[in-house]
Amino acid sequence: MVSVHLDAGMVEVRDTPRPDRPEGFALIRLLIGGICNTDLELQRGYYGFSGTPGHEFVGEVVAADSAGLIGKRVVGEINLSCGNCSWCERGLARHCPQRTVLGIVRHPGAFREFLTLPERNLHVVPDSIPLEAAVFVEPLAAACEILDQVTLPAGSEVAVLGDGKLGLLIAQVLHAHGCRVLQFGKHTEKLHVSAARGIMTEMIGSGALPVAAFPYVVDATGSPAGLCSAVQMVEPRGVVILKSTVHGEVPVDTAPVIVNEITLVGSRCGRFETALDLLERGAVDVASLVSERMPLSQAPAAFALAAKTGVLKVLLTGD
Amino acid sequence: MVSVHLDAGMVEVRDTPRPDRPEGFALIRLLIGGICNTDLELQRGYYGFSGTPGHEFVGEVVAADSAGLIGKRVVGEINLSCGNCSWCERGLARHCPQRTVLGIVRHPGAFREFLTLPERNLHVVPDSIPLEAAVFVEPLAAACEILDQVTLPAGSEVAVLGDGKLGLLIAQVLHAHGCRVLQFGKHTEKLHVSAARGIMTEMIGSGALPVAAFPYVVDATGSPAGLCSAVQMVEPRGVVILKSTVHGEVPVDTAPVIVNEITLVGSRCGRFETALDLLERGAVDVASLVSERMPLSQAPAAFALAAKTGVLKVLLTGD
Repeated sequence: MVSVHLDAGMVEVRDTPRPDRPEGFALIRLLIGGICNTDLELQRGYYGFSGTPGHEFVGEVVAADSAGLIGKRVVGEINLSCGNCSWCERGLARHCPQRTVLGIVRHPGAFREFLTLPERNLHVVPDSIPLEAAVFVEPLAAACEILDQVTLPAGSEVAVLGDGKLGLLIAQVLHAHGCRVLQFGKHTEKLHVSAARGIMTEMIGSGALPVAAFPYVVDATGSPAGLCSAVQMVEPRGVVILKSTVHGEVPVDTAPVIVNEITLVGSRCGRFETALDLLERGAVDVASLVSERMPLSQAPAAFALAAKTGVLKVLLTGD
Repeated sequence: MVSVHLDAGMVEVRDTPRPDRPEGFALIRLLIGGICNTDLELQRGYYGFSGTPGHEFVGEVVAADSAGLIGKRVVGEINLSCGNCSWCERGLARHCPQRTVLGIVRHPGAFREFLTLPERNLHVVPDSIPLEAAVFVEPLAAACEILDQVTLPAGSEVAVLGDGKLGLLIAQVLHAHGCRVLQFGKHTEKLHVSAARGIMTEMIGSGALPVAAFPYVVDATGSPAGLCSAVQMVEPRGVVILKSTVHGEVPVDTAPVIVNEITLVGSRCGRFETALDLLERGAVDVASLVSERMPLSQAPAAFALAAKTGVLKVLLTGD
């Protein structure tokens, strides 16, 4: 079967055997995968990754212990947890210390014809959600995670820094939640996705960013400078949500964080149920985020395209 | 009158005129001042400070608009706020953007025979609190601030990193609040202050610090490495309270903050009422933190002593 392989910065397409299905796991045929910035970071060699990447997918179950799953379209939680520890028992399997992570940590990813995941990780996709929307469930859940961590009353003013894929999803999720979102970005055409949903946007130009102006700021820039800007933009006693990983150490001036008593909240994966609900209700538009579709066999070109400025989501199709 | 002056790293004692008392202000005779690590940082030239330092004090009111204040022993909130902005109206005058700060930002400090502060900044010290305890109200309020920002249920396990003056006060405040405190430090004799109050302590030696072991960690190390240690020690979804300012930029690896969804809370000044209440109830022991008393006229020697390893609070007496 076709599978994508990352090693030492190279993206290759290989022919590999179909994976075995352990007990409790489902064997899933890939329908669509989505290339995430994390995949591009793995390509650059961060975290010493080599293997098959891919953690955003929608697929069809071809084999499973539960007969009811077979033939169903599914998305899957990316953290493979032990199921027994205190984190798992508290409903926070995403933080299980024993976990592996689909396409990131010691579990082969979704960018191949067939993948495996524990059945308990799977969510059946309602028929009303198109395939190309369902592939956004994972990043959309990550955007929704903010609302699980921080109480954002309706009407709250929130600045979202960054107009990449995740920044656009976050802006929509917070807008749908009733926040007054102002999104800052550097790309007119990307900000247009948010503007079309009624979200206020502002181009980051030569002018200075507002100082101490927002009770909540989300850093989704993916840049080391983003945290610094966010700390400057947030009000005293305000909350900065860190939504973009940056490789390596970031120089942070902690003095304003302490003097202004700012809270910084790291935020990662979220619950799939919330994301599926938003898509089912049509509360967010993900179709506008698709830049290109390419078959799995063209993964090297797809990765190169996804890394280009101005490009949003590149999808890999399973056929 | 005698006043201490910092300039270009030098501590000098000068003879200066008694300050004018503006309307709404009290003129206060210094009884005791306390040298804080921030004073030592000001001495090193941080924040471009030159002038009279000192923000921990207890004094006697000698002139005021309110006759009832005259002759009273007082402590004073260090932030001089506008009284009119939204921050002042919300009871957070400590964050007033127009504020000056006693001995730190554009208001001469307390290390002089007579100082001035707005009457509304003053708190009369109950007779039951000794002078040498009252001088700890300001740093004790800063320790209490943690409880105003973070909900710490009784019984919560909290690691306090650092056994300096502020670290010792924080450990006692959280212990009195009902937390299960484990304090980490590098000085046996300092940790003994906490141990004598029934607080668990642990020397930081060559061994590794515990990893992902505490739901709450307070960094009161005053060292750039403290934040990094705190992030390693806190559990996923845990809270790190940043209680020590470090000059300049600190290199922070934001990846574990995001992956483990850690919350970092900057924490500064607190409410004096809470600190006075703790002292009145005898819930904390501050007497053990006093290393030395020296007259104002010996401020250069007092500053030098306060900067030495192993020394805790050095008090400056007004006579």
